[in-house]
Amino acid sequence: MIIVMKADTQPDSPELSQVIQMAEGYPGITTQLHRIEGATRSVIEIYLLGPTGVVPTEPFEEFTSVERVVRVTEKFRSIGRHGGGLEAVGFDYNGVHFSQENLHVFPGVCAVDEPHNLEDTFKALQENGVQTSRAGAYKPRTSPYDFQGKGAACLPWVFELAGKFGIRVIAMEVTHEKHVNEIRQALRESGNATGVMLQIGTRNAQNFELLKVVGQQTELPVLFKRGMGITLEESLNACEYVASGGNRRIIFALRGMKTNLGDPHRNFVDFAHVPVVKRLSRLPVCIDPSHSVGSRAKSPEGLLDIFNVTAQGVIAGANLVLVDFHPRPEEALCDGPQALLISELPRFLEDVQIVRKAYEERVKRTALPD
Amino acid sequence: MIIVMKADTQPDSPELSQVIQMAEGYPGITTQLHRIEGATRSVIEIYLLGPTGVVPTEPFEEFTSVERVVRVTEKFRSIGRHGGGLEAVGFDYNGVHFSQENLHVFPGVCAVDEPHNLEDTFKALQENGVQTSRAGAYKPRTSPYDFQGKGAACLPWVFELAGKFGIRVIAMEVTHEKHVNEIRQALRESGNATGVMLQIGTRNAQNFELLKVVGQQTELPVLFKRGMGITLEESLNACEYVASGGNRRIIFALRGMKTNLGDPHRNFVDFAHVPVVKRLSRLPVCIDPSHSVGSRAKSPEGLLDIFNVTAQGVIAGANLVLVDFHPRPEEALCDGPQALLISELPRFLEDVQIVRKAYEERVKRTALPD
Amino acid sequence: MIIVMKADTQPDSPELSQVIQMAEGYPGITTQLHRIEGATRSVIEIYLLGPTGVVPTEPFEEFTSVERVVRVTEKFRSIGRHGGGLEAVGFDYNGVHFSQENLHVFPGVCAVDEPHNLEDTFKALQENGVQTSRAGAYKPRTSPYDFQGKGAACLPWVFELAGKFGIRVIAMEVTHEKHVNEIRQALRESGNATGVMLQIGTRNAQNFELLKVVGQQTELPVLFKRGMGITLEESLNACEYVASGGNRRIIFALRGMKTNLGDPHRNFVDFAHVPVVKRLSRLPVCIDPSHSVGSRAKSPEGLLDIFNVTAQGVIAGANLVLVDFHPRPEEALCDGPQALLISELPRFLEDVQIVRKAYEERVKRTALPD
Amino acid sequence: MIIVMKADTQPDSPELSQVIQMAEGYPGITTQLHRIEGATRSVIEIYLLGPTGVVPTEPFEEFTSVERVVRVTEKFRSIGRHGGGLEAVGFDYNGVHFSQENLHVFPGVCAVDEPHNLEDTFKALQENGVQTSRAGAYKPRTSPYDFQGKGAACLPWVFELAGKFGIRVIAMEVTHEKHVNEIRQALRESGNATGVMLQIGTRNAQNFELLKVVGQQTELPVLFKRGMGITLEESLNACEYVASGGNRRIIFALRGMKTNLGDPHRNFVDFAHVPVVKRLSRLPVCIDPSHSVGSRAKSPEGLLDIFNVTAQGVIAGANLVLVDFHPRPEEALCDGPQALLISELPRFLEDVQIVRKAYEERVKRTALPD
Repeated sequence: MIIVMKADTQPDSPELSQVIQMAEGYPGITTQLHRIEGATRSVIEIYLLGPTGVVPTEPFEEFTSVERVVRVTEKFRSIGRHGGGLEAVGFDYNGVHFSQENLHVFPGVCAVDEPHNLEDTFKALQENGVQTSRAGAYKPRTSPYDFQGKGAACLPWVFELAGKFGIRVIAMEVTHEKHVNEIRQALRESGNATGVMLQIGTRNAQNFELLKVVGQQTELPVLFKRGMGITLEESLNACEYVASGGNRRIIFALRGMKTNLGDPHRNFVDFAHVPVVKRLSRLPVCIDPSHSVGSRAKSPEGLLDIFNVTAQGVIAGANLVLVDFHPRPEEALCDGPQALLISELPRFLEDVQIVRKAYEERVKRTALPD
Repeated sequence: MIIVMKADTQPDSPELSQVIQMAEGYPGITTQLHRIEGATRSVIEIYLLGPTGVVPTEPFEEFTSVERVVRVTEKFRSIGRHGGGLEAVGFDYNGVHFSQENLHVFPGVCAVDEPHNLEDTFKALQENGVQTSRAGAYKPRTSPYDFQGKGAACLPWVFELAGKFGIRVIAMEVTHEKHVNEIRQALRESGNATGVMLQIGTRNAQNFELLKVVGQQTELPVLFKRGMGITLEESLNACEYVASGGNRRIIFALRGMKTNLGDPHRNFVDFAHVPVVKRLSRLPVCIDPSHSVGSRAKSPEGLLDIFNVTAQGVIAGANLVLVDFHPRPEEALCDGPQALLISELPRFLEDVQIVRKAYEERVKRTALPD
Repeated sequence: MIIVMKADTQPDSPELSQVIQMAEGYPGITTQLHRIEGATRSVIEIYLLGPTGVVPTEPFEEFTSVERVVRVTEKFRSIGRHGGGLEAVGFDYNGVHFSQENLHVFPGVCAVDEPHNLEDTFKALQENGVQTSRAGAYKPRTSPYDFQGKGAACLPWVFELAGKFGIRVIAMEVTHEKHVNEIRQALRESGNATGVMLQIGTRNAQNFELLKVVGQQTELPVLFKRGMGITLEESLNACEYVASGGNRRIIFALRGMKTNLGDPHRNFVDFAHVPVVKRLSRLPVCIDPSHSVGSRAKSPEGLLDIFNVTAQGVIAGANLVLVDFHPRPEEALCDGPQALLISELPRFLEDVQIVRKAYEERVKRTALPD
Repeated sequence: MIIVMKADTQPDSPELSQVIQMAEGYPGITTQLHRIEGATRSVIEIYLLGPTGVVPTEPFEEFTSVERVVRVTEKFRSIGRHGGGLEAVGFDYNGVHFSQENLHVFPGVCAVDEPHNLEDTFKALQENGVQTSRAGAYKPRTSPYDFQGKGAACLPWVFELAGKFGIRVIAMEVTHEKHVNEIRQALRESGNATGVMLQIGTRNAQNFELLKVVGQQTELPVLFKRGMGITLEESLNACEYVASGGNRRIIFALRGMKTNLGDPHRNFVDFAHVPVVKRLSRLPVCIDPSHSVGSRAKSPEGLLDIFNVTAQGVIAGANLVLVDFHPRPEEALCDGPQALLISELPRFLEDVQIVRKAYEERVKRTALPD
């Protein structure tokens, strides 16, 4: 059971204490306090743990500072909205705020290769005012004989370069629990020059042991990519493995589904699920247009499909965009053909901005009242 | 082989005659003239029919009024762009222009039921300046024991009402060739009070005999809905059955694909294919958000999923939106739960307008040059 | 409601009359008599039509000659087993008996081409004691520019050849209602030299208008192929369109599902559904190994995949096998690469026989009691 | 490049030495010897490692004791047949021989629960002459709040019981690399009372880090279950991660694919791929009928679907059958509804035997010559 306090309730408010006291008066019940930071207001939630089945909701609803009392269902216990009663969970990491209400673009390289390529990439980001990026050091590949990523060895110079160009958060895939420690250590050794969001790739979406590991540390946030051949509900269940470990700083990412019904795109673009994930869960939603589309194909109007599907995610309220850029795609060791050029970055950002503005206008003017 | 003339070439230009004469000088070659009406310019195309394999392109390319010469490939012979060499085929019907460049919204009832419901619907359309609608008289249903539509009997009053409220084009599904004649006759008997676009439903996407019939008449345009379990390429091939019959006034409609990977939506929304269909074919592209989503679920921002996926289609350049409305969804004999309310029409149209404006800005500012 | 009489009940039995009389005593109830011909016994079923909701079952169950009373549910009303209470519906056509209990092989050509090829095929069938075959005169093809079948013109010589070699039933696809009449007329003109089972192809599985037409005639039985992108339940619902028209002589055919998860086979082989269709419906079940596999690939043991998947259908109780043979695959106008050679027919039939024998042993020795 | 020696070549044959010497004479080439143990003969293969692109095949083919020389392609480098040139790789483990030619049934519990249930299971196996079983200690579950398995704690008594009842190999899923060590240690501590085949579940089919770990040890064989939403080719590629680590004792398991096209079965049964895997790879092929079907549904003949799909795998040459049994399904902590009863074991084994005999007859009588 979760008791949501009204927005103006202070952490030291006497009513808050009374509510907690009443809750803990029921046999076997303990409480936890969570503070949800939204864009315009912050909210305190009191979690009741233990045999809550017999705890009534009415006594709590009578407090004037209680907004509502929500019974938590089994489904998506930690990340769910439980029938709409709960707000999204925003969070701050390394100076960047993530929520279901704002938008960050993460342009970057699919796989780290040479320092000069990463330097050119980060430099372009800085010039365009972008502080969030992607850069893969560990690459899971379909065949064992393909390039598997630069690994831990590249982390020192990756983080140093990131710091140099003001990158605050890098999304970086991990495929083994030891990668988490390698990244944490390298971050510390870089003097925390930047921050890292641990990315769980689609192939590991049901690698529950790895999910537990990234869920049991709370230093680094987690970017969870939905699984390929499973339903959205099963992916959200898998995401619970992260949250149930204690780490609540999670982003849910859509990256297309593997089925030939989506041809000629590499994957069947699933960004119509952006509002669905926002409705079912409290997590900010990320889209990955590059891996969904998988090519630089262009519409007759001159808009790349990657631009178009990005626009489709953003117009429906996506909160993060993970997108492949490369200064020299011909040198890329992985997925070069789908990379956008550094010279296309301003155009891409302008495109996103046009669409985001339209999204905001939609929310203001055409959203239905509750 | 198709010879595309420059935009300012007049039908009576001497060079045009010379080109035709030269073409018909090759053994066994005959020609056909097609005029493509675009938003800003119209183009004349000369089709060379016969053994064109041995006809060279160079002599034609030397004419100053020839823009380009395109070799037609097997794939999507009539509707394809053949490597980008051909422009989209726009067309006029009953005073409405359709093309890959503009946008029309077709709000209406999934299935015709009672006159007062249709009257309320058409009246609302007129009040909101909409002249295009949908209204199903023949309904293919999964079970033979479900309501199968009002049939030919309702056509007279449907067309009369349409005329009364200034509706110029109604999209109407046909499932049997006799329906085409019934509609044509009822239209005539109504004094052509309105116009009809023949809709081929997803279940009949590979009913080649029906496709031939609607393709062999040229009075009414055709709205072809892609098939459920087949690839996009196979649906475009099926669409060729319409075009190869002679009718070139075709719209290609996306309506979601049937797979549980799209749950909880009724179908997996496939509007990322909007730019793909525009790239591969010369046809205007329609989206059907109602049948894709199948419910009135709403995002936390208060935007219905139907609004959101419509926005996703429009932001990527969709040309038609087929959307279910009903003044009294509880009286609807089919798909009531997914219908928008008549009172929501202004909001829906405003939403579309916001997004269309953003799309146009994208084309102007972020499209890549050729 | 259906009242199933005990197996030894005679059509002129006094108790049968009493049951009917009692049934028709309820307000608004009329009755129909159906005789189900099984391999070892025949059963009389009395259908109660009208407002059966208020008719109790108990009074009927008290008759000693009543085996059971089954309430008919909406789902698969005509073809369903309604919870197991009803037996399969076998039928005779042109001297051949079809049921869920026996097995017929239909080797033949995918598409009729030249008389000498069909003659060689039928001759081989006769030499191997086979009286059932397939031969397509009307071919629905993915592209309108592919060979579309010989059409009505070939029917006279096809039927004459069939008669000459003792073929009693040919499975023949129809894609338009006029084909049904063309076939019936040609059959008559051939002096009913053979019989035809009307095949509904997978692309027309939800062409409800065509299903109604073949369901409203009762001269020719129907072979219904499941739809490609729809669930088994939806295909069974479509099959109801045939049955609800009055024609109860229906075979349900499995032919693989279109999804790349089945690669490298042409379709995802779905013969695990053989027992499912037998459980849910009263229809004999056919398998089409040729279109499922789509190639002559061979296992290391030397067994063609087409042989192997046939064996998989038969070992689970399939009742018909529709399989492509061709005396000269290089001359085939359609699907030549998947055709078996006439010289392989004896081997194929022996393979089927080995497996069918094992199936029968399984039923005898390892089936569970009710 | 692989040089396959004739079957009667002895390891100490002088020609073998000459072949090796010639091979190592090419610059940068080293060799490895592998001995393939088939049912009726054993074969020596010489692997050439290094820059084999410039090594000609002719000089080797001239040796009378060389059967053939096979150029290894990228695709399925270690596990592939490379165009049919290589035989299957059989292997022995703990006294049991596995190959593409024989058949073992692994009846057992999905998840280990109480000792008395496991004891009853193993006892029944012994009474029926079965020495191979399944028993899950580590269970990956869709939700983190479901039972996750007894873990390492149960291993001592599981192995002791296995030893007591003569079980030689238990298939046991591992989801974390530490499980491999826990199992190896517990085996040693049990005095190697039994053996374990490490099972990689479908959710970890592309958990490449785990695949590397089980591939880099050679003590225990690996049972690899194909991934859910990926193609067969991608699953075989993933399997290469095991083989490329050095462990060649691998079984490839089919367990159905997740798509609603397979409804009402839990997964779309994919056993038509049995001969495909045998053709593409050198690995023995396992089927898992319990997880494919997911229920105890029964055909009208009285054959459980689980029996039927098992029969479908076996009739096409499956080499292992992994099947859930439970003495008290109502006590099962996982997948009870799909478990067969211990009392059904003799019937199941007899069913398998009937079908295997038919398979062997097919190979003898209806297989095509090369």
